[in-house]
Amino acid sequence: MFIRTPLCDLFGIEHPVLLAPMAGVSGGALAAAVSRAGGLGLIGGGYGDAAWLNRQFDAAGDARTGAGFITWSLARQPHLLELALERAPAALMLSFGDFRPFLPRIRDGQTKLIVQVQTLDQAREAVDAGVEAIVVQGTEAGGHGGARATLPFVPAAVDIAGKIPVIAAGGIADGRGLAAALALGAAGVLCGTAFFASGESLASDNAKQAAVRGSGGDTERSSVFDMVRGLDWPSDWNMRTMRNSFTQRWSKDIDGLVRNLAGEKVRFEIARAADDTDIAAVIVGEAADLIRGIEPAQATLHGMILQAEDCLRRISRLVEPNSKR
Amino acid sequence: MFIRTPLCDLFGIEHPVLLAPMAGVSGGALAAAVSRAGGLGLIGGGYGDAAWLNRQFDAAGDARTGAGFITWSLARQPHLLELALERAPAALMLSFGDFRPFLPRIRDGQTKLIVQVQTLDQAREAVDAGVEAIVVQGTEAGGHGGARATLPFVPAAVDIAGKIPVIAAGGIADGRGLAAALALGAAGVLCGTAFFASGESLASDNAKQAAVRGSGGDTERSSVFDMVRGLDWPSDWNMRTMRNSFTQRWSKDIDGLVRNLAGEKVRFEIARAADDTDIAAVIVGEAADLIRGIEPAQATLHGMILQAEDCLRRISRLVEPNSKR
Repeated sequence: MFIRTPLCDLFGIEHPVLLAPMAGVSGGALAAAVSRAGGLGLIGGGYGDAAWLNRQFDAAGDARTGAGFITWSLARQPHLLELALERAPAALMLSFGDFRPFLPRIRDGQTKLIVQVQTLDQAREAVDAGVEAIVVQGTEAGGHGGARATLPFVPAAVDIAGKIPVIAAGGIADGRGLAAALALGAAGVLCGTAFFASGESLASDNAKQAAVRGSGGDTERSSVFDMVRGLDWPSDWNMRTMRNSFTQRWSKDIDGLVRNLAGEKVRFEIARAADDTDIAAVIVGEAADLIRGIEPAQATLHGMILQAEDCLRRISRLVEPNSKR
Repeated sequence: MFIRTPLCDLFGIEHPVLLAPMAGVSGGALAAAVSRAGGLGLIGGGYGDAAWLNRQFDAAGDARTGAGFITWSLARQPHLLELALERAPAALMLSFGDFRPFLPRIRDGQTKLIVQVQTLDQAREAVDAGVEAIVVQGTEAGGHGGARATLPFVPAAVDIAGKIPVIAAGGIADGRGLAAALALGAAGVLCGTAFFASGESLASDNAKQAAVRGSGGDTERSSVFDMVRGLDWPSDWNMRTMRNSFTQRWSKDIDGLVRNLAGEKVRFEIARAADDTDIAAVIVGEAADLIRGIEPAQATLHGMILQAEDCLRRISRLVEPNSKR
């Protein structure tokens, strides 16, 4: 058995599951593993390092992968788009910023464009532009995101999207979440946290362990890691991570962090180099409760599909004929 | 056709849909309408007005309804529990505080106890106490609530709950949300926003219109309305409402509100009396996008069930036999 939606046809994939292009985590090996398992792996373009990106495309080998970029960051380094287009990616995903300046070049390159949105107004913009698919990302997602929660956000976006496939993201890390997303009208899902602790993920060992141990209740959105990394993210978005001593110290005292920034940058970089997750960021979302161990991405993806199938069978049996209506 | 889950057997209802006991909104007429339509209506016990509560039970007439209380408030007025138990309610629901002191009396009264939780630790506590059902409430809910989002929170709670039915709440206002909740492992849903604008709801006319016009993106959580109403809510919970000029002025300037509280209380009460929703609270959640008009609660509930059935049929058809696996 398998689950077939319009997303499968759009991208020529077996399972309607995309790997989120997590910066520094979704490298070529992870993207290739997800694609080889029947999903679509997206390499995380991150903040723009051409040499790194080339290495990751190389690492993906002959697997059919795509890539995702942070739109406001790509606008500062448009040559990265050329680099990605040269690889004939299965799709490009743009998130966090105005995708429209890039649309003509992506069309020229005969590449499918996925746009990730955090508001219904952004969804309308993407639909009006005729992109190939939209990712509707809920606030429960790990990493950068907005304020709307997946469960009510997805059906509202589906009502706007018409024939354009909606991909649900945020809080989905098992087959129940996939089945729920399909129930909401999505054509598939995009998962980050589910694959964060995969064997092929570039997350550090301690970060993977922290993700497996952690709960969604131990995560929060803040800007502290962007500040200490010197990343000038627009204020529309902030970043969900596990809580640790760094977020506890600063997330409610941004002014204090600004005053102590030079010293905190040093402390943070030392912790990052030492893989000290009590200070460095563990960038996962509220679905952390649902990841139970470090395993190959293929096992995660196939487990998700099997559980979703079971789930769809289970709930379809809940509908009973009844003479009362 | 209809949708049958263990929740239907537990409460002797036809549809696995509960009316949230919204304070000041879920009166006897609305609770009775939901129960007569085949769900379970819960009268909102609110902050404790015995005469009001008696009138609402009277208004529910012979319909089989229950009631819900704010636990920390009930602890100050335990006689309200006696009042409710005298009505032989179909169930009592306790939210926001320690339910355990009330458990023996509710057991004595042979009444089913539903406990609403906002964290996994609270879910564990309710499961350990052997309550009849738990409501797992996501942050997208209107009114008071916590920080976790419904989609990843429900399956994590289901994994804890064992045989105790989980009822999903927060962000669910149509059949797609109901079907998604069932996919996540819930045995049913509890809906507030879906019924806020019902004909039978006690919400004001302008509040209902604002809810119908509004979007989930126009809602936010804050404590400003609790402060101006003089309600000393524990800081674990705050309240989701539509944004309006009052939240815009004060939600990021709580200290300022404290300094101006006397005057703002007067301004707020005048607005409330005048049904001025630019200042008074419109207490709905992120599912506001999904409510499209003012209609009888029965139409909403039956529409939800029909859509959920369609949805379950649609997604069960996505599972295809395939020789590749």
